[in-house]
Amino acid sequence: MTRTVYVNGEYLPETEATVSIFDRGFLFADGVYEVTSVLDGKLVDFAGHAKRLERSLGELEMTNPTTESELLEIHRELVARNGIEEGLIYLQITRGAADRDFAYPEDAAPTIVLFTQAKPGLADSPAAKAGIKVITIEDQRWGRRDIKTVQLLYPSMGKMMAKKAGADDAWMIEDGFVTEGTSNNAYIVKDGTIITRHLGTEILHGITRAAVLRFAREAQMKVEERAFTADEARDADEAFITSASSFVMPVVEIDGSAIGTGKPGPVATRLRDIYLDEMRKAAV
Amino acid sequence: MTRTVYVNGEYLPETEATVSIFDRGFLFADGVYEVTSVLDGKLVDFAGHAKRLERSLGELEMTNPTTESELLEIHRELVARNGIEEGLIYLQITRGAADRDFAYPEDAAPTIVLFTQAKPGLADSPAAKAGIKVITIEDQRWGRRDIKTVQLLYPSMGKMMAKKAGADDAWMIEDGFVTEGTSNNAYIVKDGTIITRHLGTEILHGITRAAVLRFAREAQMKVEERAFTADEARDADEAFITSASSFVMPVVEIDGSAIGTGKPGPVATRLRDIYLDEMRKAAV
Repeated sequence: MTRTVYVNGEYLPETEATVSIFDRGFLFADGVYEVTSVLDGKLVDFAGHAKRLERSLGELEMTNPTTESELLEIHRELVARNGIEEGLIYLQITRGAADRDFAYPEDAAPTIVLFTQAKPGLADSPAAKAGIKVITIEDQRWGRRDIKTVQLLYPSMGKMMAKKAGADDAWMIEDGFVTEGTSNNAYIVKDGTIITRHLGTEILHGITRAAVLRFAREAQMKVEERAFTADEARDADEAFITSASSFVMPVVEIDGSAIGTGKPGPVATRLRDIYLDEMRKAAV
Repeated sequence: MTRTVYVNGEYLPETEATVSIFDRGFLFADGVYEVTSVLDGKLVDFAGHAKRLERSLGELEMTNPTTESELLEIHRELVARNGIEEGLIYLQITRGAADRDFAYPEDAAPTIVLFTQAKPGLADSPAAKAGIKVITIEDQRWGRRDIKTVQLLYPSMGKMMAKKAGADDAWMIEDGFVTEGTSNNAYIVKDGTIITRHLGTEILHGITRAAVLRFAREAQMKVEERAFTADEARDADEAFITSASSFVMPVVEIDGSAIGTGKPGPVATRLRDIYLDEMRKAAV
């Protein structure tokens, strides 16, 4: 089956979906993105993603070619046309096409692209039951990870380093502290306290992170937002990650050492259940 | 006039030159590039660029879809079809199109794109006679600047910061030392010695840099390859940059302070002349 995707106002078969070779997304990685998950054919935390998109665009002095309600309509149309029950919707906006110049063009129209990825079993994931394994790697990314840009080569390299090491993902280390996973926020649990890095330019301000921390606090769990080391992670009782595509995913091994019992822990498991329940209810 | 460009084996009008929205160059900045200058309708230091391209591809475990002789032929064909006497040829290779996944695809064919930019007066540039102004900004790029990837958002932002400050370019500072310009290597001259940062992962290994340093040594000039500070630059007798598109370009002001006499200095001027003379002779 050929997906229907969205490019600059048109719904197209994926095989015909192209952008100019002069698009600054292609030449300069001059673009931002969002990934929204779909459960029961509905959008999870759409408003959160739309808000972060505006922030990313603002930080780069880039224009949004759509309104939030138009974006919602496009998302829903793609879900319907592609029959997505569980999966993801990817959205990218770039500064548009212009003859190559490091300086921003004055008259380029932004490019907007959206496509779906069907992921049957996303919520009832075997990985969530088994937990995933991570390795630690040096964080070599640029300094503004709070802007969700398509400069994703290093996270991509990190994912390959993990695969080669027989693991599922990599946690990145900067000045001795864990920043985050290649495409997710990182957490440990010690003596009942959930510890995750504080917000700043060093990490992405995860939409799932914000929701999960809110649910944790509402459930009277103790949360500390501070940097933690890889050693602390090795000594933790549990660990997990959050992202739009993995929700809450237990981490059971770091650099070959089991974390806690080496099985998904009660805090991660409970938070995943709460997150999925609440988000299914609130999905639009 | 519409340029003829090259995309994956075809010569096309620029208006029809596209890549898939699933190209990893567009989605992940998973691509590398080279820019070769053209003088008298011939390619400057083509072999140097072809060699660095291979290195960049190798560092990213990416495949070159062409041989060096095929690449040379494509470059020459584009020069001929577009009637380029002075200008640039841009070349980009990406890991190709595949459904979006941080892990590298196993079966994607690399994408290759080339286009020309006519730049009449590139060698006899008014900017080279007046010198350019730079500001200093923090270096926020990723850690592997020796790989010539398309992750160019921060250099692009830096160029805009320079423009807003009434300058031409920005020199990036890391841990107190100048790394390089937004798209060029940086040099100062003090008491007759040319000082430029040593090679490493912190800077691009400039093809023009290598040639200019060779010519400087052949002309019995003293060269020190070491990191220097912005303060040293302010106190220098001269400063300049090198790149494929600017050759050797004098820098006469840094953060609003004149360098030396505030005019292009003799070392930069002489090196530009030598470089252009030698490169015209060796161009292919």
